[in-house]
Amino acid sequence: MDQNITSPVSIGIDEIRQAADRLKPWAHVTPVLTSRTLDQRCGGSIFLKCENFQRTGAFKFRGAMNALLQLSEAERASGVVTHSSGNHAQALALAGQLLQVPVCVVMPHTAPAIKHAATKGYGAKIVSCEPTQAARESTVAQQIEEHGYTLIHPFDNWNVIAGQGTVALELLEQAGPLDLVISPVGGGGLASGTTLAVKAVSPTTRVVGVEPRRADDARRSIELGSIQPSGDPRTVADGLRTSLGERTFAVLRGRIDQIVSATEPEIIETLRFLWERFKMIVEPSSAVAVAPVASGTLPVKGLKVGIIVSGGNVDVEPFFQALSSKWLD
Amino acid sequence: MDQNITSPVSIGIDEIRQAADRLKPWAHVTPVLTSRTLDQRCGGSIFLKCENFQRTGAFKFRGAMNALLQLSEAERASGVVTHSSGNHAQALALAGQLLQVPVCVVMPHTAPAIKHAATKGYGAKIVSCEPTQAARESTVAQQIEEHGYTLIHPFDNWNVIAGQGTVALELLEQAGPLDLVISPVGGGGLASGTTLAVKAVSPTTRVVGVEPRRADDARRSIELGSIQPSGDPRTVADGLRTSLGERTFAVLRGRIDQIVSATEPEIIETLRFLWERFKMIVEPSSAVAVAPVASGTLPVKGLKVGIIVSGGNVDVEPFFQALSSKWLD
Repeated sequence: MDQNITSPVSIGIDEIRQAADRLKPWAHVTPVLTSRTLDQRCGGSIFLKCENFQRTGAFKFRGAMNALLQLSEAERASGVVTHSSGNHAQALALAGQLLQVPVCVVMPHTAPAIKHAATKGYGAKIVSCEPTQAARESTVAQQIEEHGYTLIHPFDNWNVIAGQGTVALELLEQAGPLDLVISPVGGGGLASGTTLAVKAVSPTTRVVGVEPRRADDARRSIELGSIQPSGDPRTVADGLRTSLGERTFAVLRGRIDQIVSATEPEIIETLRFLWERFKMIVEPSSAVAVAPVASGTLPVKGLKVGIIVSGGNVDVEPFFQALSSKWLD
Repeated sequence: MDQNITSPVSIGIDEIRQAADRLKPWAHVTPVLTSRTLDQRCGGSIFLKCENFQRTGAFKFRGAMNALLQLSEAERASGVVTHSSGNHAQALALAGQLLQVPVCVVMPHTAPAIKHAATKGYGAKIVSCEPTQAARESTVAQQIEEHGYTLIHPFDNWNVIAGQGTVALELLEQAGPLDLVISPVGGGGLASGTTLAVKAVSPTTRVVGVEPRRADDARRSIELGSIQPSGDPRTVADGLRTSLGERTFAVLRGRIDQIVSATEPEIIETLRFLWERFKMIVEPSSAVAVAPVASGTLPVKGLKVGIIVSGGNVDVEPFFQALSSKWLD
């Protein structure tokens, strides 16, 4: 496992293809969906690659599983640790359960009970920490020190990035040649894997990343030539609040064609469109990638466009609370 | 179009196969989904036939379209009328729009604005009436008198029933031999089509209908040997509040193997399970059909079971209201 960051980009299409082979017995080949309504609205042919139907409800399972499958026997036996309160935590927990690798997740004590429960449901050990970057890092370090865990970073890890690249590989096989592939950008794991896969398989295909306007650190980082912190941006797209890592920054600068952004109203309106028209549950971070096409801010007239719908983990409690209070006496 | 109710059941598998051919250019072949979690939970192999992904978001498009495709030139030119505030209204409206047949929908003025808008969105004329059975019937009669419309009943119409039967036909082709097929029962159009199709194609396959416990008029009707009114049952499953019609009663008595019911908490719990695990939007009436399997009240251990997920039209406003009020300032 090459984690040497002095070599800027140490994976390519070979590692992504190997990841695809490695994941075959474990990950779902998720469907690609189309919609006349969406096509009519934007004038292009849109192919949604639906990772909300992936195991644990998000593409994150691919990267986590690919990373665990490349550990040595000794590393597997000692177990792994990560810090995440989101989809990577659940993905790593399930991957560990399937491979019998102990998983420890460091989570701020402020994380929603539902995420805590989901991760625990897959058999991971959860260690709480204060909701600060410093506390998170020191808690992870302490766990590694005590238990000899291997860190599986949510996105700044070459094997994780290679795993995420398998999404775009599948999409190109399923949808055929595309003019444009769109990925959401948070920490940049999915966007990096997507960029590497697409540019290798189909060099003329453009790759566009989308981030919430309130968390447009990736665009700023690439423009300014150094990683810009995202702060603690107030966006409904909870999966995209993070800033880039050293590896994802190294991949995206100079390789991704464009980074655009979506406003909060655009994100929520697109989310509703996806729920109502596709009858599928997607999370706000996925709506971010579809928003520029659905709202018309990114012109795609006459183009064949693949969009990665990254996940479907969203708290539906408000809906069921309303339903129950109306119908259950 | 044989609407003669003195001949108890005037369609069979031939009419259903003809409907399938007729619908080929118009209706989606909807996917069949499976879930390890659901299989582990009930001990059977469950195949969900997902009509929530059908055009207009429900199986109703099949019956409405099949009925319109069998009208004479003169009938098409005069147009059609129906009474419905639900999925049949939208289905008939789209079918009419596609075939350029004028559609009039009689709707109680109490119908939710969202259903009104959806039906109007497909170009139908909407005539409001008082929310009583008498007002509905007299308004329909008046429209027929005035405009020469043909009535397309939501379920008590042989061509509609034949159209709905194509769902089970597809399911058997997609999932292979099944021990059991489960359909929700409201007015009985889908349950009748399903029963006729399954019993003809695979005579040893059991067919079970499910209705809300608070609207268990179909079970009572069959037990007592005459159509029992459902009253105005207070159930979240808004598509299943109707009682059987003469034709659907004639089909189901003596043909359907069993009718079971689901309580309101079981329906809502199953709805949530389907949303969270399958990441798909289904409506409460669809959860009714899955509930006996998901909650264990219908034992299916070791069985191959097809379940018809009838639709996905549900008002998601409470979810988006909560999201918007939290994230949009």
